[in-house]
Amino acid sequence: MTGVVYFSVSMSLDGYIAPDSPEELMGRQWMELQHWIFPTQFFRENLKLGAGGEGGPDDDVARATFERTGASIMGKRMFDAGEEMWPEEAPFHTPVYVVTHERRDAWERPGGTVFHFMNDGIDSALDQARAAAGERDVRIAGGAETILQYLNAGLIDEFTIALAPVLFGAGIQLFEGVDASRIALEQRDVVPTRRATHLTYTVRER
Amino acid sequence: MTGVVYFSVSMSLDGYIAPDSPEELMGRQWMELQHWIFPTQFFRENLKLGAGGEGGPDDDVARATFERTGASIMGKRMFDAGEEMWPEEAPFHTPVYVVTHERRDAWERPGGTVFHFMNDGIDSALDQARAAAGERDVRIAGGAETILQYLNAGLIDEFTIALAPVLFGAGIQLFEGVDASRIALEQRDVVPTRRATHLTYTVRER
Repeated sequence: MTGVVYFSVSMSLDGYIAPDSPEELMGRQWMELQHWIFPTQFFRENLKLGAGGEGGPDDDVARATFERTGASIMGKRMFDAGEEMWPEEAPFHTPVYVVTHERRDAWERPGGTVFHFMNDGIDSALDQARAAAGERDVRIAGGAETILQYLNAGLIDEFTIALAPVLFGAGIQLFEGVDASRIALEQRDVVPTRRATHLTYTVRER
Repeated sequence: MTGVVYFSVSMSLDGYIAPDSPEELMGRQWMELQHWIFPTQFFRENLKLGAGGEGGPDDDVARATFERTGASIMGKRMFDAGEEMWPEEAPFHTPVYVVTHERRDAWERPGGTVFHFMNDGIDSALDQARAAAGERDVRIAGGAETILQYLNAGLIDEFTIALAPVLFGAGIQLFEGVDASRIALEQRDVVPTRRATHLTYTVRER
């Protein structure tokens, strides 16, 4: 029994998951995109922000996403942005495989997150992540380019989108460059909350 | 008591509502975008395709959209495509205001649809449509460019998207060109069905 390969992102109604560059502040739009997760108990616990926070369906989604994940994969740009932003105890608490051309030794953080820098492509990174995850799932954490590489290669089993009630108008679109001739979706689960709509799809080949 | 101004469209998960040109067939993707409405009782009734069809939440959404609408507004390209495609008894059964530079006399169809060709801009077309709709709502029927003109002008009160489990990868994106600095959304209602997720948002100025 092995886990699935999935991704889970917050997306604006017009399809964006990030501004054009990590330095770019989008002000209220960016906060509105992530607004469903900030008030949750899970978010506070995981970043050690202290007690409090809300339970409920948004909290359940955030917690379940964390708990199902035995290893994560991310692109170099996401790692670079995160390296600046994550607290010393990085919020993964599992192995994380960074797909990059940079050669670098594994980087162990307090709390169980270990970043491994993978130089031989997405398949190899996935093999390592699967082995590390065991029965749990492998999450393709981001960014959009890395998610699309795995999706277009037919390596994603399912995904969840937290569709936020906000329009970006510019930035990085999750599905730009998707091979739509190859990928069919099956709508599996919809969880509406006050702050977002959590949509889960199974990926099928056409 | 006057009605609201709204739009209601089917959108792919990657934000498209139509192929790049009306002649372009997108095969299964296009059918999957509209798939939620074809099996409904309302669709069959409204196009006089005979008895049968399914009840249920998709049917309720389609019927409610029709019944609330006292007048529609559309762009010239949508009209041109529809003129080829609609049956003689066009499916609106109300006045329809076509925003165009073309001068043409009103065109009355059996069953109560009357197309009026409006040459003096979107505000004037909306004034006429409001007057015709009375207590019912005005629907901006499409296409994307016409919807965006009204949205960016602050003239849309609310909208509904039937989010379909399909990726297009190319075509006409609903929100391309939206003035995101001006428009805030409030998520109001989510109706998940087997075939789509019907999302309703209220539009607010930022």
